[in-house]
Amino acid sequence: DNVFKIAVLPGDGIGPEVVAESIKILDAIGEAFQYTFKYQYGLMGADAIYKTGNPLPDETLAICRESDAVLFGAIGDPAFDNNPDAKVRPEQGLLKLRKELGLFANIRPLKTYASLIEKSPLKKEIIEGTDIQIFRELVSGIYFGEKFTEENGAYAYDVCRYSREDILPITHMAFKEAQRRRKKLTLIDKANVLDTSRLWRKIVQEAAAEYPDVQLDYMFVDNAAMQLILNPKQFDVILTENMFGDIISDEASVIGGSIGLLPSASVGKENALFEPIHGSYPQAKGKGIANPIASILSTAMMLDYLQLDQAADKLRESVEHAIENRYVTVDLKAEQPCSTTEVGSFIADYI
Amino acid sequence: DNVFKIAVLPGDGIGPEVVAESIKILDAIGEAFQYTFKYQYGLMGADAIYKTGNPLPDETLAICRESDAVLFGAIGDPAFDNNPDAKVRPEQGLLKLRKELGLFANIRPLKTYASLIEKSPLKKEIIEGTDIQIFRELVSGIYFGEKFTEENGAYAYDVCRYSREDILPITHMAFKEAQRRRKKLTLIDKANVLDTSRLWRKIVQEAAAEYPDVQLDYMFVDNAAMQLILNPKQFDVILTENMFGDIISDEASVIGGSIGLLPSASVGKENALFEPIHGSYPQAKGKGIANPIASILSTAMMLDYLQLDQAADKLRESVEHAIENRYVTVDLKAEQPCSTTEVGSFIADYI
Ligand SMILES: CC(C)[C@H](C(=O)O)[C@@H](O)C(=O)O
Ligand SMILES: CC(C)[C@H](C(=O)O)[C@@H](O)C(=O)O
Repeated sequence: DNVFKIAVLPGDGIGPEVVAESIKILDAIGEAFQYTFKYQYGLMGADAIYKTGNPLPDETLAICRESDAVLFGAIGDPAFDNNPDAKVRPEQGLLKLRKELGLFANIRPLKTYASLIEKSPLKKEIIEGTDIQIFRELVSGIYFGEKFTEENGAYAYDVCRYSREDILPITHMAFKEAQRRRKKLTLIDKANVLDTSRLWRKIVQEAAAEYPDVQLDYMFVDNAAMQLILNPKQFDVILTENMFGDIISDEASVIGGSIGLLPSASVGKENALFEPIHGSYPQAKGKGIANPIASILSTAMMLDYLQLDQAADKLRESVEHAIENRYVTVDLKAEQPCSTTEVGSFIADYI
Repeated sequence: DNVFKIAVLPGDGIGPEVVAESIKILDAIGEAFQYTFKYQYGLMGADAIYKTGNPLPDETLAICRESDAVLFGAIGDPAFDNNPDAKVRPEQGLLKLRKELGLFANIRPLKTYASLIEKSPLKKEIIEGTDIQIFRELVSGIYFGEKFTEENGAYAYDVCRYSREDILPITHMAFKEAQRRRKKLTLIDKANVLDTSRLWRKIVQEAAAEYPDVQLDYMFVDNAAMQLILNPKQFDVILTENMFGDIISDEASVIGGSIGLLPSASVGKENALFEPIHGSYPQAKGKGIANPIASILSTAMMLDYLQLDQAADKLRESVEHAIENRYVTVDLKAEQPCSTTEVGSFIADYI
């Protein structure tokens, strides 16, 4: 039927502000296309720590499990970042949620918008026509490995671990996406030094046999960090492990002109979560200047996932309409910028 | 006295070609300033594996230990990169050499050259006037931690470990450099997730008390990868752990216009090694197109280290003279580029 249960986790910083715009737009989509979105709100991140002591309360997890999709804002709070001794951290909530829901693939599309190309720190001829899809493994690697700090602070360690089962599902997903696109897959690793990277290379090499029409390349992460800026057009689909994906995809956001534009989907076998790639941006909190487009385009990815293709297309068209008409926030326009809610309402009205 | 023992490790790919130009220039410096440089050549990397089975023969290590400074070219060979099962690798030679010589700090200066600014993929107004000094910890962290691959390839792990003793020396070195410069130090880490990063933050925070005139900032590595491109001028001295430094400093090379320009020094308590930050670039091997400037500027850093300040200044002036006169290789100039040896000879003649 046409009823969808959406778990909504606004989180910290500008999270609540941008998520509110996504809800406004989902309501507009619901009206235009006769869908009903039922929202269930959950606490998460620093907000949840302040209110319950727990960055991911059980209730939030339960709401997410029952949902057809999760819409997430952002987490993070400088009060924790600047305290190396804090025992509970907002980020633990997000990491645990990803793990519990089995969201093994974080997918980040990267495109340039013709009308925003001038905003990029990169030259137009370098970025024009860039179209990359990043697949970042999201529930293993060093962010989830064993961690230890000696009690007097004499030493600490973090373990990066990968198994065949961790690597295979996202590998197949990335190959399949490459088949639907320009048929090129680049694995980013540090296989000249790390055992885990060599395992990635081996498994990806084996899987490649099933996709003979896809060209497979390898690139060391240090070189990739350079190549993404020198010549981003060489990439089609990028596949990489958790931490490299974290670094590379934030870096690659400069191609689009503003991190405030970039959506992401985190998908697993049974659940999926949609979030802007920007963080909680605490300096902007409550000022009405946050760009809601990353969250709104994450909502479009959610509509794709729910197979509401027409609605997703309409939403993307509406976002492009807003951008072409320069109905954008201050990160994209110095003179007469719009507020967060103005951009959201403009897009909702167009729908 | 005026005699210096220089260990010379040409290594793989374009290493021998660029190191040959540095030797040409050291000879010119010796003549002009009445110094004697005594060269002792050592095998290293894939070249050493092919000839001896060992990427770092004992003899090479002995030559390096006895030297006043080590001049190193590059290592790496695609025959090893594309074979995840290779048991011996060129990179092991370099990693072992760094460890054995205790070269705990890799120092990479980053500047823009007025006459090359157009070559960068970044816009002029973004990069003009950038002047960054990166301090990368070089003998600990995940590149040196315990590694393991299960024999059937079911799983693998790499351990990132840091102790207080690993972190303190480079921290003080970086703070002292910040004091000599614009008095700003940025620690790049992932302290919202990793125990090792939190240890870095704690120790750097403590050390900061001794340098009250230096402003200390923290930045997460994902954000830093973005900020380096959005606004590189915000950085003065960057301090970071081994792998983040590897990624960040290669990325930052785009600011200068070509990775073929960028030198580095790796220093320890008793030894020091000087190498271009570019790798072995096997596609260019033997073609006479490699840019020798990164190796030549690494030689200038070696002269600094040997406290031959006048000679170092003269060398840098000569390099700038070559660049201003567009006497450069194909990576910096499409029409009528010079060859590797032409650039080296032009600089040597000027000295
Ligand atoms: C908040 C943090 C744990 C997270 C990560 O590194 O995964 C964030 O940077 C991201 O990329 O979603
Ligand atoms: C060759 C490799 C081991 C090395 C490293 O990652 O340290 C290289 O990339 C470098 O940056 O010097």
